[in-house]
Amino acid sequence: MFEEIKQKAYEANMMLYRFGIAPFTWGNASECDRNAGVFAIKPSGVPYSELTPDKMVIVDFSGTKVDGDLNPSSDTPTHAALFSAFSQIGGVVHTHSVNAVSFAQAGLPIPALGTTHADFCYGPVPCTPALSEAQVESEYEKNTGLVIIDYFKRNGLDENAIPAVLVKSHGPFCWGKDAAAAATNGATLEIVAEMALKTLKLNGEAPPIDAFLLNKHYLRKHGKNAYYGQK
Amino acid sequence: MFEEIKQKAYEANMMLYRFGIAPFTWGNASECDRNAGVFAIKPSGVPYSELTPDKMVIVDFSGTKVDGDLNPSSDTPTHAALFSAFSQIGGVVHTHSVNAVSFAQAGLPIPALGTTHADFCYGPVPCTPALSEAQVESEYEKNTGLVIIDYFKRNGLDENAIPAVLVKSHGPFCWGKDAAAAATNGATLEIVAEMALKTLKLNGEAPPIDAFLLNKHYLRKHGKNAYYGQK
Amino acid sequence: MFEEIKQKAYEANMMLYRFGIAPFTWGNASECDRNAGVFAIKPSGVPYSELTPDKMVIVDFSGTKVDGDLNPSSDTPTHAALFSAFSQIGGVVHTHSVNAVSFAQAGLPIPALGTTHADFCYGPVPCTPALSEAQVESEYEKNTGLVIIDYFKRNGLDENAIPAVLVKSHGPFCWGKDAAAAATNGATLEIVAEMALKTLKLNGEAPPIDAFLLNKHYLRKHGKNAYYGQK
Amino acid sequence: MFEEIKQKAYEANMMLYRFGIAPFTWGNASECDRNAGVFAIKPSGVPYSELTPDKMVIVDFSGTKVDGDLNPSSDTPTHAALFSAFSQIGGVVHTHSVNAVSFAQAGLPIPALGTTHADFCYGPVPCTPALSEAQVESEYEKNTGLVIIDYFKRNGLDENAIPAVLVKSHGPFCWGKDAAAAATNGATLEIVAEMALKTLKLNGEAPPIDAFLLNKHYLRKHGKNAYYGQK
Repeated sequence: MFEEIKQKAYEANMMLYRFGIAPFTWGNASECDRNAGVFAIKPSGVPYSELTPDKMVIVDFSGTKVDGDLNPSSDTPTHAALFSAFSQIGGVVHTHSVNAVSFAQAGLPIPALGTTHADFCYGPVPCTPALSEAQVESEYEKNTGLVIIDYFKRNGLDENAIPAVLVKSHGPFCWGKDAAAAATNGATLEIVAEMALKTLKLNGEAPPIDAFLLNKHYLRKHGKNAYYGQK
Repeated sequence: MFEEIKQKAYEANMMLYRFGIAPFTWGNASECDRNAGVFAIKPSGVPYSELTPDKMVIVDFSGTKVDGDLNPSSDTPTHAALFSAFSQIGGVVHTHSVNAVSFAQAGLPIPALGTTHADFCYGPVPCTPALSEAQVESEYEKNTGLVIIDYFKRNGLDENAIPAVLVKSHGPFCWGKDAAAAATNGATLEIVAEMALKTLKLNGEAPPIDAFLLNKHYLRKHGKNAYYGQK
Repeated sequence: MFEEIKQKAYEANMMLYRFGIAPFTWGNASECDRNAGVFAIKPSGVPYSELTPDKMVIVDFSGTKVDGDLNPSSDTPTHAALFSAFSQIGGVVHTHSVNAVSFAQAGLPIPALGTTHADFCYGPVPCTPALSEAQVESEYEKNTGLVIIDYFKRNGLDENAIPAVLVKSHGPFCWGKDAAAAATNGATLEIVAEMALKTLKLNGEAPPIDAFLLNKHYLRKHGKNAYYGQK
Repeated sequence: MFEEIKQKAYEANMMLYRFGIAPFTWGNASECDRNAGVFAIKPSGVPYSELTPDKMVIVDFSGTKVDGDLNPSSDTPTHAALFSAFSQIGGVVHTHSVNAVSFAQAGLPIPALGTTHADFCYGPVPCTPALSEAQVESEYEKNTGLVIIDYFKRNGLDENAIPAVLVKSHGPFCWGKDAAAAATNGATLEIVAEMALKTLKLNGEAPPIDAFLLNKHYLRKHGKNAYYGQK
C-alpha cells in the first residue's frame, strides 16, 4: 500500500543527495497521491545513506501520519499546506542549497536575468516576508506553508508557472508535477541563484530579461505550444 | 551513413557532460560534414545518460532534418546559421556554464586579461546586443545565429581567431575545427570567465593584457609559426 | 587500552578528510575519555591516507603524551586546554576550511543570518582577538586554547550552545559531544560561512535572524524539547 | 639513465592533474638532478592521461634537450632559468590555477593574511612587473624566468623561504626541494589565494598577519627549530 509514492518519494530524496543540495539531513522530498489524499515524505533526521523506500512516512493533507514506523520530516506541515492549497502539484522539496539560501538570508527575490531562469520559472523567484513571532511560536512549520500560499495569492502569482519560493531567513521550497520534477527544480534553482549572484556582482544594475524573451523561453518548454523535447 | 559525424557529435556532447558545463539537458554539440552539406546534432531534451551515437540527428544547413528518428535540438537553426556563415568551422557547441552565462546576463564581454585567455581566443569574447521582439517572436533560434554573425561582420571580428561569443541574456556559443575542439573551447571559456570575474573583483580597473603578449600567446599555439605541442 | 577513543578519533579525522575541510595534513580531531582523563588525537603531519586507529596518540589534559609511538598534533595543547575548561565536550576538531578561515582572516564573527546557522549554533560564531606577541612566543598552542576560553568566559558565551570559534588570523576550532559531532560541526561551519559570505555580498546590511526564529530552530534540534529526528 | 628524475617529474605532473590546478595541458612540473646538471620536464601539449615516465624530456640548464623523443614544455626555458639562479631548489611547477591566476591578472601580490599562508610562505607571494615588448618578442620564456629572478634579487627576497611567484598577466610558478614539493606548493598557493580573495571581499582593509605570528608558523614547519611532523 502506498508503495508507488513511497518509491517515488525515496527516489526524489536521493536526487537531492546526488545533486548536493541537501547536505547532511537538511532536505526532504515528498510525493503526493491526490486520489488517496496523502503524500509520502522522508523520515526526520535519517541520513540519506540509510534511506530506503519503506522508511518513507505516509501523511494526510492535515499533516496527520497515516502509515510508517518513523517520525515524518519536521517540515511535514509545510508540505501538507502546500499540497492542500496548490491543487495541481504532485511533489514538494525543501533544501538548504547554498546560493538559494543566500538570497533567502539577504531577503531578496532571485530576479529573472536570463534564459536559464526563464526555461524553468516564469518570472522572479519570490522571497516571502519574515514570519512573525506568533507565526513562529505556534505551528511554525504549518505557518511557513501558509506564508508562502498567502504571498502567492496576494501577489497574483501562479504556482504552476513559478515552481519555487524563498522563505526569508530560511531557504527554498520547490514543487512540480511530481517529486522528481520538484527535485529537478530544486537543483535548477540553485544553479540559477549562483548565476544571478555572479551577474549582480559583475553588474549591480543588470536589468531583468526582456518580457518577450522570458515568454519565448518559458513557453518553448511549458504549455500547449511547447516545442522543446520529443513530444 | 553519416556514422562518422554522428560518432563525433556524440563524443562532443558527452564532453560537455563530463566537463560539467551543460547541466541536465542544457547544452548541445554538433559536428559538420561540409562535403555532404549536413551536420549531426544532439536530439532535443534527451538526457546525456541516454545518448548514443545513433540518436544523433542529421540536419542540412537550412535547418531541415535529413536523417534520424528524434527531433533535433531546439537550437538547431542557430547551429545551421553558424555553419552557413562561418565557412571554416567544423563544430559548434552551446552551453549554460555558470560563469560565462553570468557575463551574458550582465551584458558584458569577457575581457582578455591574461595568457590563459590569449592561449584560446585572440581578443575579448564579445557579447551580442539583445534580440529585438521581432527577432524573438519569429524564427528565434535562427535569428540568434544571425545576430551573432551580424555582430562579427559589423565589428570586423574573425571567427577563426575568436571561437566563442556570448548572446546577451542567454549564454555562450563556441565553435572550432570540429565538435571536440568546440567542446574544449566551451570548457576553456568557462574557466576564463571565472578568472575574469575574480580578477575584476580584486581590481575593477584591471587592464587588458598587453597587445604584444596577447599576440605572443595566441600565435604560440595557433597559425603557421605555432611552437606549442608536438608538431 | 584506549582502543575505543583511538577508533573514534581515527574515524573523525577521516571525516575531516572526506568533508574536504582539512586539505593535506591541515586538520586534526580528538576524542576524549573523561573517566580516564585523556584524549586520542591525530599524530602530527601524517597524511590522512596513511592514518590508522593505532597511530592515534593518547595525551592527558596537561598535554603530556601517555601512549603512542608518534608525536601528537602540534595543536595538542589547544585541544587539552579546551577539554580542561569545557567540561561537557567529548571531541574537538581544528580545520583550515576556506570560508571559515576567510572570516578568521578578516577578523570577523560569522553572523547568524538564517535557520541553517540556527540549527547548529545558538548565535554568531565568535572571532577571538589576536594573540599578543608574548602569547605567541611562549606556549603558543596552549595560549590559543586559553584565548578561546577567556573570550567565552568574558562574553558569557555557553560552549554547549556555541560549538565553534574562529581564532583571529588563523581559523576554526569546533567541538561537540564526541569527535564525530565535532567533525560534523566543522563541516556545517564551513557551509554556514559560505552562505554568510554570499549573503553579505548580496546585501551588506543583511540583518541577523530574528531572535524568536533563532530560538525556534536551535531548540527544535537541541535540548529537552527538541522534536527533530527520531527520539 | 635519468630514470629517477623522469619518474619523479612524471609523478609531480600527475599531482598537478589530481589537484585540479592544471586544466587540460596547462601546467608542467620538472625535477632536477644537480649533479648531472639536467632536469626532467613534461613534454609539450601532451594530455595528462597519456603521460608516462619515459615521455619526460631531459634538458640541461641552458634549456637544450639532452634526452627524449618529444618536444619539452614550451615553458622549459623558464624552468632552466630558475634552476640556474636558485641553487637550492630541486623542482619547479607552472600552473593556471584559477584563484592564483586572478591575482596575477589583477597585478597584485597575495598578501600573507593568516597562518595557512604562513605555514607555506614567509611573507606575501610577490607579483612581478609585466614583461616589456622586447622581453616578450625575443626569448619570451627565458625572459619570464629572468624577470622572476631579477624581482627576487632587487627586493631582497629569499627563494628558499618564498616558494612561489605570480608573473603579471600570466600566472604562478612554484618551486621546492623536489618536484613533489613544488606541486604541493602549487596546490597550497591556490587554496591560499582563494582564502585571500574571500578575506578581501569580507574586509578590503584586512591587515596582514602579525610579524611574530608569521614567524611562529613559518618556523614551526621550516628550519632547524621546526617541531611540526615526526622528525
